[in-house]
Amino acid sequence: MLPKGNFPEKIFLNGKVISGVDAAISVFDRGFLFGDGIYEVMVQLENGLFYGDAHWQRLQQNLEKIGIDYNVAEMEAYLNPLLMASNLLNKPCLIYIQVTRGVAPRKHSFPKDVRPTTMMYALPYSLPHINTKNVYAILRSDNRWLRCDIKSISLLGNVMANERAMEENAEEAVLVRDGFITEGSHTNIFFVKSGKVYTHPANQLILDGITRKIVLKLCEDLDIPVMEKAIGVDQIDGMDEAFLTGTTTQIASIAQLGDHTYHAPDTIGPVTKKLQEAFAELKKLEPEKLVL
Amino acid sequence: MLPKGNFPEKIFLNGKVISGVDAAISVFDRGFLFGDGIYEVMVQLENGLFYGDAHWQRLQQNLEKIGIDYNVAEMEAYLNPLLMASNLLNKPCLIYIQVTRGVAPRKHSFPKDVRPTTMMYALPYSLPHINTKNVYAILRSDNRWLRCDIKSISLLGNVMANERAMEENAEEAVLVRDGFITEGSHTNIFFVKSGKVYTHPANQLILDGITRKIVLKLCEDLDIPVMEKAIGVDQIDGMDEAFLTGTTTQIASIAQLGDHTYHAPDTIGPVTKKLQEAFAELKKLEPEKLVL
Repeated sequence: MLPKGNFPEKIFLNGKVISGVDAAISVFDRGFLFGDGIYEVMVQLENGLFYGDAHWQRLQQNLEKIGIDYNVAEMEAYLNPLLMASNLLNKPCLIYIQVTRGVAPRKHSFPKDVRPTTMMYALPYSLPHINTKNVYAILRSDNRWLRCDIKSISLLGNVMANERAMEENAEEAVLVRDGFITEGSHTNIFFVKSGKVYTHPANQLILDGITRKIVLKLCEDLDIPVMEKAIGVDQIDGMDEAFLTGTTTQIASIAQLGDHTYHAPDTIGPVTKKLQEAFAELKKLEPEKLVL
Repeated sequence: MLPKGNFPEKIFLNGKVISGVDAAISVFDRGFLFGDGIYEVMVQLENGLFYGDAHWQRLQQNLEKIGIDYNVAEMEAYLNPLLMASNLLNKPCLIYIQVTRGVAPRKHSFPKDVRPTTMMYALPYSLPHINTKNVYAILRSDNRWLRCDIKSISLLGNVMANERAMEENAEEAVLVRDGFITEGSHTNIFFVKSGKVYTHPANQLILDGITRKIVLKLCEDLDIPVMEKAIGVDQIDGMDEAFLTGTTTQIASIAQLGDHTYHAPDTIGPVTKKLQEAFAELKKLEPEKLVL
């Protein structure tokens, strides 16, 4: 059933761990018909989940935002059996989780008494100690909906923006709404100016990334002043540094944003570097200490 | 596999007509993971498809908009076999069609060399001669993306708005962006003032409905002046009539929009009535004559 590609051998689907090839859902799943669901991505390091609680909590909160009545603790209990079946227990991996509203005849409004569809898989994946990439990111108009705070699977806007970045041999599309930079197609973005860090406030125009939150906390710990304030497109070339954050991106320096070059591809700005190093240290901590 | 409900017995899926219960797609279908697909809904009357060509063309155009390389003629050739298997050949029915980008490991950008997923089913469905409903519609902030001209399956914004309408015992949620009325959660909206008809221009903020186009053509035929111009929320109570259009809605009179009552639930405005009657006549024509 699956074409060639890096698919997981095992998948948790609706309470069972089955083979990836067999993991199929009805064409009447509202995830397939309406993009009506929530997803989450987290990583496991050798010493455990990296900010696992924050990811599970966000999943629960997002399900509540769109009125899907499901307790994520149920899926959480299946994570270890899934990892065991996947031969990834205590091994570095990426974990993808998705919950949709379930299977029902096609009708926009919420169906009654429907069991949500729950899906989760793990793939071998090792985060580099520090993300040494120096990204080229294009600028794109942010045409997504006005509830980007919801980590929904209705992602066509993100997909189209990201595809454009790939077409232009860039690594990310950074989105601009009404003249202000919001976030990347699947990352958050930060700027540095005169030692001060700027990022878009966590409102309905961006996803409040876990790594975004970690970086804000690191800034506090490192006495780096932070301002949650959107940066205008016209301010890009007045900034000293820029970087992207995300669960798999970690902290990625931006060498070039649109037409503006921050520095040579072999250079990392001092504040970005400091944050990257502090972030790398977090990965050595016991999972219990990783709280936001 | 399916819960109780009005599901079709037969489904066309990827080149085969199979039982609805068996119609399953991989959890790695990009329709399920990203809402990355296009859909279409059309009706068949006793004398054939109602504006079938217009619907197939729109599907083709929408696939092109999001870069899915698929010739809809392939699915079109399967419609009759599907209808035959569904015992709906030459019978009134509703036809749902969906094409997604296909199955691939999860990554935002477009996968290469992937076969699109094609799905289609028909359900018994008879349009009333005239839609005699007199709708109550609520007003909701339009928080959808800025490419509503694309008939995409990333529909969470529409779903949430429609659900709110149902919660408030209304039949539709009419959306307002920046103070102007765009369209309903799954319909277009028209207003009438002093014998003149108004509707939002067909730009990226609305879906250019087939029924919307039919109504514009009927206005021309009936010498009713039309202006494609967005109506402000503050103009709602200055309008004489309002109605919704859509493939299954046809033309539905609005009795109440938000706080404003146009007329008693047993009254239909004269222009709305005239258009409803002219629309009903179209359904008697041979399918070849139904062109836009």
